Amino acid sequence: MRILEDSNTLDPVTSMGENGNGKLAMVVFSGTMDRLMPVGILASGAVAMGMDVDIFLTFWGLQAFAKASQGKPPKFSGDYADMAPMFAQVMMQKNVPTPFETLRTAKKLGHVRIYACTMTMDLLGQTKADFIDLVDQTAGVGEFMDQAKDAKMTLFI
Amino acid sequence: MRILEDSNTLDPVTSMGENGNGKLAMVVFSGTMDRLMPVGILASGAVAMGMDVDIFLTFWGLQAFAKASQGKPPKFSGDYADMAPMFAQVMMQKNVPTPFETLRTAKKLGHVRIYACTMTMDLLGQTKADFIDLVDQTAGVGEFMDQAKDAKMTLFI
Amino acid sequence: MRILEDSNTLDPVTSMGENGNGKLAMVVFSGTMDRLMPVGILASGAVAMGMDVDIFLTFWGLQAFAKASQGKPPKFSGDYADMAPMFAQVMMQKNVPTPFETLRTAKKLGHVRIYACTMTMDLLGQTKADFIDLVDQTAGVGEFMDQAKDAKMTLFI
Repeated sequence: MRILEDSNTLDPVTSMGENGNGKLAMVVFSGTMDRLMPVGILASGAVAMGMDVDIFLTFWGLQAFAKASQGKPPKFSGDYADMAPMFAQVMMQKNVPTPFETLRTAKKLGHVRIYACTMTMDLLGQTKADFIDLVDQTAGVGEFMDQAKDAKMTLFI
Repeated sequence: MRILEDSNTLDPVTSMGENGNGKLAMVVFSGTMDRLMPVGILASGAVAMGMDVDIFLTFWGLQAFAKASQGKPPKFSGDYADMAPMFAQVMMQKNVPTPFETLRTAKKLGHVRIYACTMTMDLLGQTKADFIDLVDQTAGVGEFMDQAKDAKMTLFI
Repeated sequence: MRILEDSNTLDPVTSMGENGNGKLAMVVFSGTMDRLMPVGILASGAVAMGMDVDIFLTFWGLQAFAKASQGKPPKFSGDYADMAPMFAQVMMQKNVPTPFETLRTAKKLGHVRIYACTMTMDLLGQTKADFIDLVDQTAGVGEFMDQAKDAKMTLFI
């Protein structure tokens, strides 16, 4: 089981010069709708401030971006089951964009790169073609950390 | 549905010069007692080191600070249901301060600002008056990120 | 209940000069196998890049390193119960190292320090002897933050 090598990475990580306003880096481990919402919102906020955004999708977070996961009813964290149905209802009523829609918009407005974790993909026998087109390229954790190490803000979500 | 604009923010975010010891910024998304404990403890630790603290309450984290949520039995993460009752019991026996009490003390000892996420408030039709007085002001994600972007440590909890 | 003082800390935190490649600091609050996996993997990635790693184990994260917790079947986040059995199965089939094994290897290859949170230990009446030998020393939150405040990346997991 490889962890650090990524010889079968489908797309090499292109070096991304940071612009003058810095970078927000997010490791997105979680795959519930409520935890993905802030990913989109923080990416939008960063882009609006002229920051670059690097997103590393791993584990459950990566699975949420699988083609096979689309079209299913959104899943919320079980810990807030008392409030989640109300949240889901107002989000629908108020046409709140999904995290996927928010990320798509953020990509149009600024520099947002979304990476799929090769280790998770190897584990589950997935390839880049298994994910929706928001995913730009695959990357190993080392490649991502090399990109992220000079970010102004780094979050694990 | 506004995400980035915050024209109806009740209180403008006052620019907060960072003191010489830097800043800890926390995005508090989670609303269970076990995850709020570290928010108070990390804020206390930062203040003891002379750091400023900026806390952005959003989603379930913000709801925990709603007046309507006070006085209810504390909720723990379901993933640790095997250990949580024992934790809750020793916390009561040893008079461990609640996260709210810890934050109140930290505010007396240092510079701790607590922001309520305007997007979450808009979604649920809430106003600043719906939250306990620990909440200093409302802020959009962009405003918070502008405050937080030069923090020494930024955590998503 | 002490929060910031740590007069009964068993081992003083030795000052750790950061090497030229910077430091990754992780507050490990979570104790499920799926959330501990990235702790080991990120530590390995950081070490491979020549970074130092500081890990602060607290709450459920600390309990996962208790001797009493070893040998139990690995627990996954309940929110992903639909996918977790499949994950657990492929991890066994592919001999994916546990987070403990990954951390042990990372320690041999670089500078990785693992701290046990004294506040959690006090709460549960634990001493350093209650934890597996991966834990290097005990530390209060203030001591950890003093170590971590100049880290390049700080994550709450």
